[in-house]
Amino acid sequence: MNCLEKRILEEGVVIGDDILKVDGFLNHRIDTVLLRQIGEDFYTLFKEKNINKILTVEASGIAIACYTADQFKVPVVFAKKGENRNIGKDVYTAEVFSFTKGRTYAVSVSKLYLGPDDRVLIIDDFLAEGNAVLGLKSIVEQAGGTVEGVGIAITKTFQNGEKKLLDAGLDVRSLAPIESMAGGKIVFRQ
Amino acid sequence: MNCLEKRILEEGVVIGDDILKVDGFLNHRIDTVLLRQIGEDFYTLFKEKNINKILTVEASGIAIACYTADQFKVPVVFAKKGENRNIGKDVYTAEVFSFTKGRTYAVSVSKLYLGPDDRVLIIDDFLAEGNAVLGLKSIVEQAGGTVEGVGIAITKTFQNGEKKLLDAGLDVRSLAPIESMAGGKIVFRQ
Repeated sequence: MNCLEKRILEEGVVIGDDILKVDGFLNHRIDTVLLRQIGEDFYTLFKEKNINKILTVEASGIAIACYTADQFKVPVVFAKKGENRNIGKDVYTAEVFSFTKGRTYAVSVSKLYLGPDDRVLIIDDFLAEGNAVLGLKSIVEQAGGTVEGVGIAITKTFQNGEKKLLDAGLDVRSLAPIESMAGGKIVFRQ
Repeated sequence: MNCLEKRILEEGVVIGDDILKVDGFLNHRIDTVLLRQIGEDFYTLFKEKNINKILTVEASGIAIACYTADQFKVPVVFAKKGENRNIGKDVYTAEVFSFTKGRTYAVSVSKLYLGPDDRVLIIDDFLAEGNAVLGLKSIVEQAGGTVEGVGIAITKTFQNGEKKLLDAGLDVRSLAPIESMAGGKIVFRQ
């Protein structure tokens, strides 16, 4: 069991059978000591991949992406949500449907910060239905770059996202893959 | 001249007389080596203050806040924007008017993560009119905590925010205080 899984068992709060709240150390209050460990764990998983850029989406992916970038010694780019953001008109963009919010939103990256030479590691905090990562994959491909891997902190493997990303040919790895939270009991995949 | 000021002169883009874009290293693409230096600089400025929490607001404040928190060895809390966020109903909240966007938005922090024992350093990337920091100050005070200082990466000292925060009794310090960008020429305060 790694640091993140241990922390989830200690402090994660399960609501119903499928919502996990980790606001105490990841999504609202941030424990940067844990985040550095997460960054090291992602580096261990993907260090063979010759990655030269980390891509995530605002807001809760940013901190994890930064500590991962520290290990790879490469820059982070975070995609912006919504249409009217102050990053200019020359952007790559994708539509993402959020099941949680029941609506579609746009994610965008300026064309200045992604290109055909980029070998990208996509990082995010949660994987459930996988649509945000598919949106980021589309953006990388629009730029002519390649997605070398997808590093997820917490994956709900009982939802569809992981399978969708694997089916799309992505190398997806999760630090805390959760098979079940039924009855409030968290079971990690071995 | 510190690292941030140097980088602004090298890569910042001035639009008109009052907009500075630093998307290449701070607000969209992130250079984490620079951010670690910024964290060290904030620590030097505020290390006498016995700070036990860093508070910022999503999204572009998060990375700077994390690297500052690393130096102080304390947690970060980032306030969430908007009303319908998944942090529960038991929140401290404040209304912030954004001149850039011409509208008011809410910022909120769960009552779980701020309290009367908190001695807070507020961190943000930009200071222009100061309303976001005043909103965070209100949230800290609702929690019964104290704002020990305000660390800003880039302050447009030709706008009203810095004066408003000083008038409110806050200890505001900026790594890159910009007196003027008239004609596209950036002049830092000495």
